[in-house]
Amino acid sequence: MSGRRAFLGSAGGLVAAAGLSRVARASASTSFFGEHQAGIVSPQPTQTYFAALDVITKRPGDIVRMFRAWTDAASRLTSGDEAPGDSGETLGIETSGLTLTFGLGAGLFDGRYGLAAHRPEALMDLPGFHGDQLVPERSGGDLSIQACADDPQVVFHAVRQLVRLADGVARVRWAQTGFLPDTPKDATPRNLMGFKDGTRNALDHARLVWVGDEGPSWMRGGSYLVVRKIRMALEHWDVTDVDFQEETIGRSKRSGAPLGKEREHDPPDFESMDADGNPVIAENAHLRMAAPETNSGVQILRRGYSYNDGANFTAERWPPWRQGIEYDAGLLFMAYQRDPRTGFIPLFENMAKLDALNQFTTHVGSGLFACPGGIAPGQFLAQGLFDAT
Amino acid sequence: MSGRRAFLGSAGGLVAAAGLSRVARASASTSFFGEHQAGIVSPQPTQTYFAALDVITKRPGDIVRMFRAWTDAASRLTSGDEAPGDSGETLGIETSGLTLTFGLGAGLFDGRYGLAAHRPEALMDLPGFHGDQLVPERSGGDLSIQACADDPQVVFHAVRQLVRLADGVARVRWAQTGFLPDTPKDATPRNLMGFKDGTRNALDHARLVWVGDEGPSWMRGGSYLVVRKIRMALEHWDVTDVDFQEETIGRSKRSGAPLGKEREHDPPDFESMDADGNPVIAENAHLRMAAPETNSGVQILRRGYSYNDGANFTAERWPPWRQGIEYDAGLLFMAYQRDPRTGFIPLFENMAKLDALNQFTTHVGSGLFACPGGIAPGQFLAQGLFDAT
Repeated sequence: MSGRRAFLGSAGGLVAAAGLSRVARASASTSFFGEHQAGIVSPQPTQTYFAALDVITKRPGDIVRMFRAWTDAASRLTSGDEAPGDSGETLGIETSGLTLTFGLGAGLFDGRYGLAAHRPEALMDLPGFHGDQLVPERSGGDLSIQACADDPQVVFHAVRQLVRLADGVARVRWAQTGFLPDTPKDATPRNLMGFKDGTRNALDHARLVWVGDEGPSWMRGGSYLVVRKIRMALEHWDVTDVDFQEETIGRSKRSGAPLGKEREHDPPDFESMDADGNPVIAENAHLRMAAPETNSGVQILRRGYSYNDGANFTAERWPPWRQGIEYDAGLLFMAYQRDPRTGFIPLFENMAKLDALNQFTTHVGSGLFACPGGIAPGQFLAQGLFDAT
Repeated sequence: MSGRRAFLGSAGGLVAAAGLSRVARASASTSFFGEHQAGIVSPQPTQTYFAALDVITKRPGDIVRMFRAWTDAASRLTSGDEAPGDSGETLGIETSGLTLTFGLGAGLFDGRYGLAAHRPEALMDLPGFHGDQLVPERSGGDLSIQACADDPQVVFHAVRQLVRLADGVARVRWAQTGFLPDTPKDATPRNLMGFKDGTRNALDHARLVWVGDEGPSWMRGGSYLVVRKIRMALEHWDVTDVDFQEETIGRSKRSGAPLGKEREHDPPDFESMDADGNPVIAENAHLRMAAPETNSGVQILRRGYSYNDGANFTAERWPPWRQGIEYDAGLLFMAYQRDPRTGFIPLFENMAKLDALNQFTTHVGSGLFACPGGIAPGQFLAQGLFDAT
């Protein structure tokens, strides 16, 4: 029983892993410092771990201390160094492009910590959308941390170190792994429905992604992240005729071209009609519903991942005739925008009602996070917010 | 509503994805045919998808037809070709070493299909082990399919095609993704506890892994797979002193060397004592508990993966003082052996009671599958079993 006594003696504290001097080698490290946080417009690695946390401390000063510790640890981890008390599972492997991106949820501004007057107007409560089947335990959160890299061990490791450093101040509310296929450079990755996903993405970052002078100082150069966990009814999709899949999406499955066009990046023609007088791209096709042309120019920067949680018993909203064990897999939708009130919200309100793709998807998790602007060495994350209080 | 009608019209059938001629390119394809099934002693890729299925048909002939279809599809998929009716999400990406390994569970021999007399004695019901907290919905299964490759999209894709081809005959009971870090060649990967895992593994495959003349003909050259989903209490592990972690495992965290030795592959010395007269490798250290030296030479071929299902509310058996949201992550333990009665069962019966590592682990899922020997082109999986009935 000596082992158990020794464990009990050390379990309460945070003990440095003496002698573990260097963790993952930084073959392709991304600086944690800069005008913007990394992981928003930077190249997208193939693996992610996203965690939403609840703040549990009663002392506002703990939050500042946590952000200082997170800034220090994130700077070390993205450089390929160990975090204080590192758990060691990335010793000897590459950081493979690790980025860490932090966000603040509306709950942080609920009055517990004297921040209520500083809540940005854009950090609203997302409205309920048509068809939402959100699981409260998989939604919301006072804080978000997203790690992206090309190795699933590296992304989990990074978040684990940060969660440990937040012990007693914040704890994980929900977490989700995600991945992309290892697609040739410059090709658009295919999602789990087999279609290229992300062909038309926001390119004008200054106008569409980064917060400008309209926001509080600590949000300038930052962005708003909308997260939606979207389950796909893959069992049903997989026995659906490809012609109907293409009609649903509005694109060719193989080439990714808009229906009626030849190449993936050809602009869609929403006016063209077929010989029977029906639109070539259906009125409720996903491509049309999401297009800036039909949404007064609204555009968001999608940076999502597929997720795969195995199989689970869940009730699908549609179709109702086959409930039971289903693939628990789909899209960890993540979108950045300058303001959700002119980004995701108006775009999705319409899509939630009419998009043909809704027949195969269910939104089961949701979150909105204000991701502060980047910082310089010597500053800490979201410092402008806390300096203002 | 034309879209919905079209969907309803096609949902019942299995429609070929016309025009999708070639799926993942086979940069490193492994032949599906041979003396043994691939994916047992072949090099271990970094990603896996494991599915256990229940057979639901009432007609024995359906099972033979399914195995014929699976053999054809598995041969195509591991060569980088599409499966019939392919869902397309690996178009344009590499197969990255895809292997597919199939197994039969005891439930297939329960009398529904006239196979009861052919159940191998070694395909027993695993006994209950000390501390088991098995979830029935995450355990057992009449059949198993494991895909391994270096891309998470490739492994899920392969199993999805096989599950679709089994429509009406078998359906997924439970499924689990897994991964390894991208470790330099010839280095031992670290598990989520940060320790090198797999240093001492069964090397004498002819004696320890492959079924010989003692088994039925269809199992010769096959092997028995034990699967255990083992949750790790990483929150507790991460605040445990490294010295105590090393005492628990019996190895140095950094080098992987047995305590008292210098290098990872040095043989452990279970006799040596420290200055105080205590064993250098504790009596209940994991290394000692699992060693062939202390288990009458018993050795199994471990080929496990880490798993990461995010965070979930679960009850841990130990320690009891902190229940609530916990990392839902750990080890998808997979071990091959010639006979579980001389492999996993005697080994783990002792470990389940005494291994110091049990303080941090909980077995939540379990399965035993008979993986038939390999086949030649023209044969189908497990053909010897069905030819004998």
